[in-house]
Amino acid sequence: MERRILLAHGSGGKLTHSLIKDLFLKELKNPILEPLGDSATFEIDRGRMAFTTDSYVVDPIFFPGGDIGRLAVCGTVNDLAMSGARPLYLSASFVIEEGFLESDLRSILHSMIQAADEAGAKIVCGDTKVVGRGSVDKIFITTSGVGLIPEGVDITPLKIEVGDQVIVSGCIGDHGMAVLGMRAGFEFSSEIISDVAPLNHLVAKMLAEAKDGVHALRDPTRGGLATTLNEFAQASSLGIKIYEDKIPVQDEVRGACELLGLDPLYVANEGKLVAVTSKNSTQVLLTCMRKNTHGQKAEIIGEVTSGPRGIVSITTRIGGTRIVDMLTGEQLPRIC
Amino acid sequence: MERRILLAHGSGGKLTHSLIKDLFLKELKNPILEPLGDSATFEIDRGRMAFTTDSYVVDPIFFPGGDIGRLAVCGTVNDLAMSGARPLYLSASFVIEEGFLESDLRSILHSMIQAADEAGAKIVCGDTKVVGRGSVDKIFITTSGVGLIPEGVDITPLKIEVGDQVIVSGCIGDHGMAVLGMRAGFEFSSEIISDVAPLNHLVAKMLAEAKDGVHALRDPTRGGLATTLNEFAQASSLGIKIYEDKIPVQDEVRGACELLGLDPLYVANEGKLVAVTSKNSTQVLLTCMRKNTHGQKAEIIGEVTSGPRGIVSITTRIGGTRIVDMLTGEQLPRIC
Repeated sequence: MERRILLAHGSGGKLTHSLIKDLFLKELKNPILEPLGDSATFEIDRGRMAFTTDSYVVDPIFFPGGDIGRLAVCGTVNDLAMSGARPLYLSASFVIEEGFLESDLRSILHSMIQAADEAGAKIVCGDTKVVGRGSVDKIFITTSGVGLIPEGVDITPLKIEVGDQVIVSGCIGDHGMAVLGMRAGFEFSSEIISDVAPLNHLVAKMLAEAKDGVHALRDPTRGGLATTLNEFAQASSLGIKIYEDKIPVQDEVRGACELLGLDPLYVANEGKLVAVTSKNSTQVLLTCMRKNTHGQKAEIIGEVTSGPRGIVSITTRIGGTRIVDMLTGEQLPRIC
Repeated sequence: MERRILLAHGSGGKLTHSLIKDLFLKELKNPILEPLGDSATFEIDRGRMAFTTDSYVVDPIFFPGGDIGRLAVCGTVNDLAMSGARPLYLSASFVIEEGFLESDLRSILHSMIQAADEAGAKIVCGDTKVVGRGSVDKIFITTSGVGLIPEGVDITPLKIEVGDQVIVSGCIGDHGMAVLGMRAGFEFSSEIISDVAPLNHLVAKMLAEAKDGVHALRDPTRGGLATTLNEFAQASSLGIKIYEDKIPVQDEVRGACELLGLDPLYVANEGKLVAVTSKNSTQVLLTCMRKNTHGQKAEIIGEVTSGPRGIVSITTRIGGTRIVDMLTGEQLPRIC
């Protein structure tokens, strides 16, 4: 019979200790985690630190291209990377439904450690709660992360200027449609693969190339590209103009979106970034991005304008212009 | 009609932004949180850092003496404090069930900010996911925290020596029985108040008094005092001997435990610590603890012995001796 997680695995007692030692420590093994103190401790340099957290509730927990574990690590790594930080240490906290398969938990931990390795970050502390059947849908993971921002790096939407260019690092909508496809059992479900990946090495390369040219960075997750651009427009009190025919979208994703009446601009990504770059640095940054695995299909999709303030507009394929509003209501729940 | 949290509040779009601005930012307002970037950023000194995380799934979410918000902040502050760190910055991540009352969320945020203020820590980043009815039981909160460990402070069970004394900072079992009382609707439910409180100031006072005398510290939460002592015994490969008549337990808690067949040694605390102290420093530390609000009823409850290795034993009121094992199975689920 397959081993399942029991309520007692969350009691803090013997079974908790065996779960932690036999499963978590074995998968996540590293010298900072190992003492299992109340806190992980490590030496840190003086400097500017980035700190972030996110909860992951994706449904289904396994999807083409990844699972909730890979998502949880990459999401937090990417949030750190978007502030220019080098991700150092991660925490992982699990809320697990009684009866969850131990083998599934092992797969998830395995994905987490793999993603952390890709990013060059370490999972150094964690927590596990087990709740009764029906009190949580399978498993939720919350990851937090800390990283150091290299001297002189200062990335913020407040630096966005008129004339800046908007770059997206690749095709949009892959993650959201991969998850949705699985959920609904659509035929396209095997063709669309989530883009979930750590972007910190891509960001490091960009900063090495043109540190001052990178004004703002963000990963367009929940709410998609449209929401990220609206956040930039609002934070900078400037306008952003994008061109529909410049935005890279895979044919399968476009087709699936059309089928379901969704706009890829609002679909979640988990391995893409949007950069607002100074006009002078844009070409060198684009070239640099395209050399990186996660930026091969990077494109300049638009520019920053003096107005209308706080508004994102799009020039459509047929030459019209419309406003791209922030997502109103709910497009796709439990996508991340 | 009372305002409720909708799925769309978790979409990343307009409603998410209004929830964050009108509720979260208003309650948690501080300059590091306010830019709402992907990460919070702050300057930090070179040194030894502590990093911790915990998920809170307590049921019910409001209980005598606190709520899930106060618990989430104090729990993480205390985990930092137990490694000797000064808690600096906290993150808070929420998974909320669709239909949750906005007024309840506001109360919880209010408790969080109050507890963070008591501890002198700041909540600087967060995340909110809203999931469909039945996918989570009301609300789960995950908090993480970072803090700096003052130069020269080194608290670890590996420093525990034969002859060290064991101090508990006050009466045990209050939190677990307060939560259980609410849940089961027992008559004692109004008399027992959770001890949930930040202990970092108490720890700072102890370290100021006798830094080298504090060998190990831990807050006996899930699994209670028995589990913490077992962890100490195992980590140090020494024995720990405690005396039943020295362990402070409130009469109401003792009575409630007897009624339900529970052993207070295994019941969760959220505002207590266990310190293993060098023999020479014990009296000065005890005096110092008793001067602090959260240590008034501190008692020396036992000592460290050369053996049997890894074993905790208790001398009972009637003079017998028995082994205090780590909790086997589940005593009280969803207590924290």
